[in-house]
Amino acid sequence: MADPRFYALAGPFSVGDIAQRIGAELAPGAEAGRLIRNLATLGEAGSDDLSFLENRRYLEAFGASRAGACVVERAAAARAPKGMTLLFAARPRRAYALAASLFYPARDVKPGVHPRATVDTSAKLGPGVTVEAGAVIAAAAEIGRGCRIGANAVIGPGVVLGDDSVVGANASISHALIGARVVIYAGVRIGTDGFGFDPSPEGHLRMPQLGRVIIGDDVEVGANSTIDRGSGRDTVIGRGCMIDNLVQIGHNVQLGEGCILVGQSGIAGSARLGRLVTLAGQAGISGHLEIGDGATIGPQAGVTHNVAAGQTVLGAPAIPALEFARQVATLKRLAAKKGK
Amino acid sequence: MADPRFYALAGPFSVGDIAQRIGAELAPGAEAGRLIRNLATLGEAGSDDLSFLENRRYLEAFGASRAGACVVERAAAARAPKGMTLLFAARPRRAYALAASLFYPARDVKPGVHPRATVDTSAKLGPGVTVEAGAVIAAAAEIGRGCRIGANAVIGPGVVLGDDSVVGANASISHALIGARVVIYAGVRIGTDGFGFDPSPEGHLRMPQLGRVIIGDDVEVGANSTIDRGSGRDTVIGRGCMIDNLVQIGHNVQLGEGCILVGQSGIAGSARLGRLVTLAGQAGISGHLEIGDGATIGPQAGVTHNVAAGQTVLGAPAIPALEFARQVATLKRLAAKKGK
Amino acid sequence: MADPRFYALAGPFSVGDIAQRIGAELAPGAEAGRLIRNLATLGEAGSDDLSFLENRRYLEAFGASRAGACVVERAAAARAPKGMTLLFAARPRRAYALAASLFYPARDVKPGVHPRATVDTSAKLGPGVTVEAGAVIAAAAEIGRGCRIGANAVIGPGVVLGDDSVVGANASISHALIGARVVIYAGVRIGTDGFGFDPSPEGHLRMPQLGRVIIGDDVEVGANSTIDRGSGRDTVIGRGCMIDNLVQIGHNVQLGEGCILVGQSGIAGSARLGRLVTLAGQAGISGHLEIGDGATIGPQAGVTHNVAAGQTVLGAPAIPALEFARQVATLKRLAAKKGK
Repeated sequence: MADPRFYALAGPFSVGDIAQRIGAELAPGAEAGRLIRNLATLGEAGSDDLSFLENRRYLEAFGASRAGACVVERAAAARAPKGMTLLFAARPRRAYALAASLFYPARDVKPGVHPRATVDTSAKLGPGVTVEAGAVIAAAAEIGRGCRIGANAVIGPGVVLGDDSVVGANASISHALIGARVVIYAGVRIGTDGFGFDPSPEGHLRMPQLGRVIIGDDVEVGANSTIDRGSGRDTVIGRGCMIDNLVQIGHNVQLGEGCILVGQSGIAGSARLGRLVTLAGQAGISGHLEIGDGATIGPQAGVTHNVAAGQTVLGAPAIPALEFARQVATLKRLAAKKGK
Repeated sequence: MADPRFYALAGPFSVGDIAQRIGAELAPGAEAGRLIRNLATLGEAGSDDLSFLENRRYLEAFGASRAGACVVERAAAARAPKGMTLLFAARPRRAYALAASLFYPARDVKPGVHPRATVDTSAKLGPGVTVEAGAVIAAAAEIGRGCRIGANAVIGPGVVLGDDSVVGANASISHALIGARVVIYAGVRIGTDGFGFDPSPEGHLRMPQLGRVIIGDDVEVGANSTIDRGSGRDTVIGRGCMIDNLVQIGHNVQLGEGCILVGQSGIAGSARLGRLVTLAGQAGISGHLEIGDGATIGPQAGVTHNVAAGQTVLGAPAIPALEFARQVATLKRLAAKKGK
Repeated sequence: MADPRFYALAGPFSVGDIAQRIGAELAPGAEAGRLIRNLATLGEAGSDDLSFLENRRYLEAFGASRAGACVVERAAAARAPKGMTLLFAARPRRAYALAASLFYPARDVKPGVHPRATVDTSAKLGPGVTVEAGAVIAAAAEIGRGCRIGANAVIGPGVVLGDDSVVGANASISHALIGARVVIYAGVRIGTDGFGFDPSPEGHLRMPQLGRVIIGDDVEVGANSTIDRGSGRDTVIGRGCMIDNLVQIGHNVQLGEGCILVGQSGIAGSARLGRLVTLAGQAGISGHLEIGDGATIGPQAGVTHNVAAGQTVLGAPAIPALEFARQVATLKRLAAKKGK
C-alpha cells in the first residue's frame, strides 16, 4: 500500500498479536496465528491484508472484500464474507489507526546532533535527542528526551520542549514552554511578537510583548501556522489541541483542551476558547471573545460575539446555524420571486 | 526598466531576431536589422525599446507611443504611430512574455553544491544541479538535471525532483514525487501529514498518513503555501497548475491539469477538481467535493456542494454567480425599502 | 511579571527618571526619587511596580490598585488611591509602552557574523551587524549598521537593508530595497515572483516579473506573510505600515504610510491603498482597486470596488458599514417572519 521509498513496512503480525496491540477482540473461532503482511482498503485488500469497515455506507464493499482480516464493529459480523478474520472494536477507525502505526512505525532515526547543527553550549539536550543538519538551538534551551529537531529549524533562547516532541524542518520557536509529545510541523512560527501597538497618524508605536506561549502535551501545530506570544499574560494552547496548516493565533489567546482548528482559520488577540471547540476552515474569531466548551464555528464563519457552550454558528457575522439556514432559504426565495 | 542590481539585461537584439524567437511576424516592410535594447511600457518606451499593446483600452497610448518596436495584434496596425516597427502576434501578452525572458534571462548560476550544503551520500544529483548554502538533501533523494535547490531548503528522504525544477529558499519537501520544470517558491511545505485523526473527548488519535504528494510537470507553488500528503491514496497536483501564495491543499486532494489557485485559497481533504478550475483569492472548498472542468470559484466563495463543469459560483455557501448577484440586489432593495 | 528565561529586567528606575524618559509629567508633590523595580497590571501591582490606566473602564481597578506608580491621564488624578505616585501622560498606553522598553530592553546581542553564517565576500555589512548561525547573505547585498539577521534567514543578491532593521529566523528576502528600523518576522517571504502569467488551456505561460519590493522605514511584517515583487513597476510598502501574520500582498500593490493589515488579510495585484488604511482580519481586496486614505475594511470583508477615503466597509462584496448593518437586520427580520 505505502511507497517503500517513504514508509518502512514492519511485520508480518499474527491477527492475535494485532488484536491485542490495537485493543480489539478476535472473533470467536478465529485462528489467532493467521499472518497479516500489510494494510489495504476493502476494495484492494487480499488475503494477506488487514482492512477496516469505517461505517455502514461501506457494508457492500465489506461483504465483497477479499481482505484476510478486517476491523469491524461487532454488529457487522453477519455481513462478513467467508474466510475473513474479524477483529471487533467499538471504534474501528481508531483501532485501525493503531494498526497502521504497527505496520508502518515511524522511521528509525539515529539519535545524535548532526555535525552541521549548531547547539549552544548552555542548551540542555535529554537522552535520545536528534538534531538534524542546519538546526540551531540557542542558549539555555531545554530539549526533552527523545525529541527530534528537524533540519534548519531554530529553537530560541530559553525555550523548553517536553519529551518526545518533534519540530519540523524550517520551523522556529521562541519565548515558549512546550509540553511532551507535541508535533510542530514544518515552517511553524511560535512565540513571535503579538500585533500590539499604539496606533497614531504620527507613527504607530509597538507595545513590547513580554509574555510567552505555553503549549500543553499532545498538541499538533500544522505547517506554516503562527502562534504569537502573549503581551504580558501568556498565549495558552491546551492539551491535545489539533491545529491544521496556515492557522493564525493572536497574542493572549487561550485554547482549552482538545480544540480542533482547521486550515486557514484565525483567532484574534485575547479570545478565549473552552474545551473541544471546533473552528472550521477559514473561520475567524474576533478579539477578546469567549467561546464556550464544545462550540462549533462553521467554515468561513466570522465570529463577532461570544458563543455559548455547545452552540454551532455559521455566517459572517456568525449566527446560530439554524438561523443561518433559515436566512439563506429566505433570501433564496425572495430573490427567486423578484426574479420572475 | 529593470533594476540592474536584480536583473541582468541581455541584448541588444534585432527585431527580426526577436520576432523569430517569440513567434511573432514582422510587419511587411519592416527593417529586420533594427536593434532593440530594452523593454518598456507604451508610455515610457523610446526608440530603442520594445513594448506591447495588451488590449484595445490602450489604443490611444499605443498611437502616442515612441516605442521603437511593439508587439500587437495585426488588427491594430492601422493605429500605429509612424516609425514604429510592428511585430504581429495573435496573443501579444504571451509573445511579450517570451521577449521579457529573452531580454532578462534567469541569472546565470554556477552549478555545484555549496560547501555549506549538506547532501546525503545516497542522494542522486543529476548534472548541472545547483545546491545553495545551508540546503539539506536527505538519503535516497533524486534531484534531476539542472535543478536549483535554494538556500536552507530541505529535501526529505526519497523525494524525487524532475529536471530543471527549482526549490526556493527555506522550502521543505517530503514524501513527494515532483515533475520537471516545477517551481516551488520560498517557504512552501510539501508532504506534511494530513489533518487526519480520530476525534474523541478522551484525546484525538492521529491517523498515520501513508500516502504521497504527486506533482506534475510545469507546476508552480507560491510562497508559504502548504500541500499535505495523502492519507493512503496520494495528493495529486496536475500538470501546469498555478498555485499562488499561502494556499492550503489538504490530503488526498486531486487537481486536474492547469488549475489556477489564487492567494489564500484553500481546499479541504479529498476534494477533486477537474481541469482548468479557477479558485479565486481566499475561496475555500469543503472536503470530499467534486468540482468540474473549467469551473470558476469566485473570491472568498465557500463551496459546500459539488460544482458542475464550467459553472461560476460565488458566495458562502457558494451558489451560481447569477443567482448570487440576484440575491445581493434583492437584499439591497429590501434593506433600502425598510430603511425608509 | 515577565519570565526571566526570556526577558531581562533592567532598573530599578526612579519615578522622576521614568517620567522624563517616557515623556510624562510627575504629579505635583511626588517624590521624584521613589524607586520602581518592575511593571504590573493594576490588579497585580505592588508598591515597587509601575502600572497604567488605559481607559475609564478600569477606573475602579485603578482606585483599588496598590501600584507604587501609575501612568494616567491628568483627569483621572482625583480617583487615585493614597500613596500612589502619578505620572501624567496624554496617552498613557503609549507612555507605558516606552516604560516597558525601559524595563525590558531588547536582549544584548554580541554583534558579529556567526562562524556558521554564510556571507558572500561582495556583500557589505555595516558596523554592529549581527548575523546568526545558518543565515545566508548573497552577493552584493548591503546590510545597514546595527541590523540583525536571524538564524537560517536568507538575504538574496543585491538586497538593501537600512540601519537597525531586523530579519527573523528562516525569513527570506530577494529583489528588495528595505528601509531603516524595519522588522521582518520569522518565515516572511519578500520579493518572490508575482502571480502573473498568460493563461491558456495549452499551458499557462509565466510573465517574467522584473520589478522590486520597496519598503519604507519603520515597517513591520508579521510571521509567514508574503510580499511579491512588482511585475515591472514595484510593490511599495509605505513608511510605518504594520502588517500582521500570514498576510498576502500581491505584485505592484502600493500601500501608503501607516496602513494596518491584520492577520490573514490579502491584497491582490496592483491594488493601491492610501495612507492609514486598516484592513481587518481575513479581509481581501481585489486587484487594481483604489482604497482612499483612512478607509477601514472590516473583518472578512471582500472589497470588489474602489473605497473612498475615510469610508468603512463590511461584507462580501463589501458595502458601506451602515448599509451592511441594515441588510443584516433586514434579513434577520424577514427570516424570522417566514419562520413563523
